[in-house]
Amino acid sequence: MKQHETIADLRAALDPLRSAGISIGVVPTMGYLHAGHLELVRRACKENDVVVVTIFVNPTQFGPREDFSTYPRDMERDLAMLRAASVDHVFTPGVDEIYPQPLETAIVPKRLGEMLIGKARPGHFTGVATVVAKLFNIVQPGRAYFGEKDFQQLTVIRRMVADLNFAVEIVGVPTVREEDGLAMSSRNVRLSPEERQAARVLSAALAEGAAMIEAGEASPEVVLGKMRATIEAQQGVALRSLDICDVGNLAAVERIDGPVVILVTAQVGPVLLIDQHEARPQPS
Amino acid sequence: MKQHETIADLRAALDPLRSAGISIGVVPTMGYLHAGHLELVRRACKENDVVVVTIFVNPTQFGPREDFSTYPRDMERDLAMLRAASVDHVFTPGVDEIYPQPLETAIVPKRLGEMLIGKARPGHFTGVATVVAKLFNIVQPGRAYFGEKDFQQLTVIRRMVADLNFAVEIVGVPTVREEDGLAMSSRNVRLSPEERQAARVLSAALAEGAAMIEAGEASPEVVLGKMRATIEAQQGVALRSLDICDVGNLAAVERIDGPVVILVTAQVGPVLLIDQHEARPQPS
Repeated sequence: MKQHETIADLRAALDPLRSAGISIGVVPTMGYLHAGHLELVRRACKENDVVVVTIFVNPTQFGPREDFSTYPRDMERDLAMLRAASVDHVFTPGVDEIYPQPLETAIVPKRLGEMLIGKARPGHFTGVATVVAKLFNIVQPGRAYFGEKDFQQLTVIRRMVADLNFAVEIVGVPTVREEDGLAMSSRNVRLSPEERQAARVLSAALAEGAAMIEAGEASPEVVLGKMRATIEAQQGVALRSLDICDVGNLAAVERIDGPVVILVTAQVGPVLLIDQHEARPQPS
Repeated sequence: MKQHETIADLRAALDPLRSAGISIGVVPTMGYLHAGHLELVRRACKENDVVVVTIFVNPTQFGPREDFSTYPRDMERDLAMLRAASVDHVFTPGVDEIYPQPLETAIVPKRLGEMLIGKARPGHFTGVATVVAKLFNIVQPGRAYFGEKDFQQLTVIRRMVADLNFAVEIVGVPTVREEDGLAMSSRNVRLSPEERQAARVLSAALAEGAAMIEAGEASPEVVLGKMRATIEAQQGVALRSLDICDVGNLAAVERIDGPVVILVTAQVGPVLLIDQHEARPQPS
């Protein structure tokens, strides 16, 4: 595995491969890797000749009072995991390499970036879209892999690729979960044992809501009401948002008659956890 | 010369070339070609194996009361000129091919897009940057050619490429002028003979200002005052803006002690004309 800290160094390694017709897949990450990331890597290795993993905790997608400085980091452990996963190239730029000067150009995801999580985190998806576009232009991959856990992020990126004609295929990969259902996240490590236990309610409530939808419940209010009661009964979990959205454009649905995604965010101890579950009415 | 109307068709033609290591230059235009465009094409042909010219009158860079509908168009004449110039590929998409759905993603050039012309034309440079990024992603060229006449546009694009790490070299090409000095522009055709005559004052005033700077005049106020008097003495020309800016970041300069660019916009009959002249104090 080759580690590159500069754009020039990475490009020098990748340009000849691309010219030789070798397919390149990229897995953009913020590091502190877990089984969810490794699933993205496995998928990328299966579908591409060469895989590039990027590790960059992107400051521009954190708000001023968010957890950029406390976001967990462990480069040595990450590199060992990627080596074991037979990754070819890892790109680990410093902040100055990605932002040598303040940006004067932003990629702004309008409606999709302002709704849901974007309402609570203004500018977050502009930071995400801009850094992902930069990584696409640096790596120039044929495919890029993102987890479905960050469903709104995945939707924003898919739409950016369509709107701006990036020649990159976006592959969304299903959420990987702990044995008890908690969605894998680098931030989980910051939960105390009690918080970790309480956090289970999110995936449980999602499964409950999805089951109601699959059983034919067509009213979002009814499903959300039941889920809200379940989550609010759990001490230590502060529900921040709970939505049933069109799976394509994330618009709120008035009646569930096709594929939807249930999105939840909740504060658990020091961590804002997010999770999602796709569901659709089953043909009877 | 091959003409392509769809993105898929153009990509099918270009992808094998790129993989074979053939260098691709692109000249983005809005058509109604003149000698200025042909100079971009000549330069592109000299520096690349294959040249792609795009012709697309981009609606999103025109304001609601601007001249999108009356912008001059003559596709047959354009194609004949490009054929004669030995261009390899011309991309002539319809509006629906470039904008199949309303964009939810915008590329926003912040300070650079809001100043100068951007003040009078809000959203103009967002439209420009976004469509140029789309064309870069569609063509994936090694080099792209833009006229220095649209100096702010060139600066916005250079900055976008740096900020977003596009793997495209931006080549700025000096303004081509009519024999009497008027900067070549597709819009010149809409001037009456009298307006055409009056418009000469712009290049004359720019030459006058540049000569003052080269002779050592360091005060922008003095240079701009003289130029303003020259332009305002010309009947039929309504000066809209006149600025002396840092050649790199377009900031207004307080004292001329390095390379600057003089930028002018003026309404002449139905047309907003723009022109520019770079200048610097000559070593004495």
